[in-house]
Amino acid sequence: MSNSTHIEQLGEFGLIKHLTKNVTLKNSTSKVGIGDDAAVIACSDEESILISTDTLIEGVHFNLMYMPLKHLGYKAVAVNVSDICAMNGVAEQITISLAVSSRFPVEALEELYSGIEAACAQYNVDLVGGDTTSSLSGLHITLTVIGRAKNEVITYRNGAKEFDLLVVSGDLGAAYMGLQVLEREKEVFKSNPNIQPDLDGHDYIIERQLKPEARQDVVRFLKELDVIPTAMIDISDGLASEILHLCEASNVGCHVYDEKLPIDGKTSLTAIDFNLDPSTCALNGGEDYELLFTVKQEDFDKIKGNPHMTVIGHMTNAQDGRYYVDKNGSAVTLRAQGWQHFE
Amino acid sequence: MSNSTHIEQLGEFGLIKHLTKNVTLKNSTSKVGIGDDAAVIACSDEESILISTDTLIEGVHFNLMYMPLKHLGYKAVAVNVSDICAMNGVAEQITISLAVSSRFPVEALEELYSGIEAACAQYNVDLVGGDTTSSLSGLHITLTVIGRAKNEVITYRNGAKEFDLLVVSGDLGAAYMGLQVLEREKEVFKSNPNIQPDLDGHDYIIERQLKPEARQDVVRFLKELDVIPTAMIDISDGLASEILHLCEASNVGCHVYDEKLPIDGKTSLTAIDFNLDPSTCALNGGEDYELLFTVKQEDFDKIKGNPHMTVIGHMTNAQDGRYYVDKNGSAVTLRAQGWQHFE
Repeated sequence: MSNSTHIEQLGEFGLIKHLTKNVTLKNSTSKVGIGDDAAVIACSDEESILISTDTLIEGVHFNLMYMPLKHLGYKAVAVNVSDICAMNGVAEQITISLAVSSRFPVEALEELYSGIEAACAQYNVDLVGGDTTSSLSGLHITLTVIGRAKNEVITYRNGAKEFDLLVVSGDLGAAYMGLQVLEREKEVFKSNPNIQPDLDGHDYIIERQLKPEARQDVVRFLKELDVIPTAMIDISDGLASEILHLCEASNVGCHVYDEKLPIDGKTSLTAIDFNLDPSTCALNGGEDYELLFTVKQEDFDKIKGNPHMTVIGHMTNAQDGRYYVDKNGSAVTLRAQGWQHFE
Repeated sequence: MSNSTHIEQLGEFGLIKHLTKNVTLKNSTSKVGIGDDAAVIACSDEESILISTDTLIEGVHFNLMYMPLKHLGYKAVAVNVSDICAMNGVAEQITISLAVSSRFPVEALEELYSGIEAACAQYNVDLVGGDTTSSLSGLHITLTVIGRAKNEVITYRNGAKEFDLLVVSGDLGAAYMGLQVLEREKEVFKSNPNIQPDLDGHDYIIERQLKPEARQDVVRFLKELDVIPTAMIDISDGLASEILHLCEASNVGCHVYDEKLPIDGKTSLTAIDFNLDPSTCALNGGEDYELLFTVKQEDFDKIKGNPHMTVIGHMTNAQDGRYYVDKNGSAVTLRAQGWQHFE
């Protein structure tokens, strides 16, 4: 028995679980609390309000050496809007809390806000509140996003059933490879500031890292296709980690196929250039902010051939385990090596 | 023309105003945005959702040397609930974002959460979300509170009219004097760690500093008395600053009377002991989290003699100016020297 437990022992998810283990919901308006992409608050008989909050910390979640402040502002909004998308809802408002050390001039914060405003315009979200305060070191941004959805379309993590198809939007691993290129050029720059960064040909993957987009369009496509996913989550920590979250919450197993993973050619080429396996980048890279969802088999015809959606596997009985079928056709246990900020 | 403007030149309020000057509201559900104690989001024909967010930073807003973590958790919730009270609403949910450096063991965060849970129980608020992440230094807490109110009772800062009475709940200046005592004992302790802190007889003012309460009870009293304030704000930065906010937002002037300020005897005695004028502490001390509101003259009979409410002045025509009538009966221009975190 130790008197002092290091937070790294629990990890980020373990810590939240541990700290909130006594939490119960008392108000009838609190429909869903901790444990999904957003909380669900009763609004009217037809609609609910969705709320999610996220913090970005300088030196932990971003590095201003290669992240322009305007991009940072944009990204902060996008990743929060993504949480509302993951509930199959529409983001409508955000609040922003900034803590900044005095090394930031007003002009730097104007840059940050110009990115926030650009994202608000892109996602049709209103900035309705927030505060700005000083910090002793660095820049901390906390965003809260408020969304809305018809009660019958709200999609949780826990609704996936055996035989449901596992679908992912867009392509995977690009944001991670963009980060690798930026990190490499940072090291080059640090060793010789006269060398210009070599980012040529990496526009796509760098943009995926610096300016991720929330897949509001996919939520709209699903509505147009008349598909309500049985479960959904957004991919912030890496595909493998998010699949395991869906399996855990829904109490199902899965089969995910390596050959099905949607990976852009530029991502693959860069991965190979870095001696990395493209599939590993897709599985564990994180920060793609694509949507991962499950649909009933009967909805397959509606999404088949859709350029924005790829079926990468299916859900199984929980007892059948969680498997990844690799390039050789061997089923291996699916493990997450995603971003664990405390490790 | 300088290329670099220091944030201290604008101050906290000036900075927010400057950064958000381009913000417009596009969604019909965004009823009120930046500039009041909470944003107002349309819910149903009868009700709206109220949202407010606040950040507390170690070394800026609190000092763990004399702020126990449990108290800090309680205070973080209370000051956010207070923002919902200031809209004449009822807080129902909160989300919490924590950023902690690795020097905090899990047990410390458990202490913090025990305070959060105690406040949630006290104010009947549900913890519905949040995230926990690492910081490079210190502890940062951002809370978002979600409340609800009938549309016809929501009280803004901008509704005060000429002749309205200016009313404050509870008593003022105690939290500030509590802080002075704690700061004094910290200095004594630093110079000689063997001397026990002398907090005897200061329980009330220290509790006002370490464990402020949101005046949810006053919102309830107002409902029972059938009084809807014409304008309201909570006192976080100091009475003078908040009065000026009401005058500014409502475009009115005011007369505030020194002799009417509700100051507890223990606050006055301690102030005198510190060679401070008790009225100055009440006007500029801050962190009282009492409610400051205006009511129509015709409502005077309803609040007259109420032990929780004190009439401290009245609103005037904007052209008549903002005046403080001091102990000698002289009207002097009311100025704020409240907490300016950037100065």
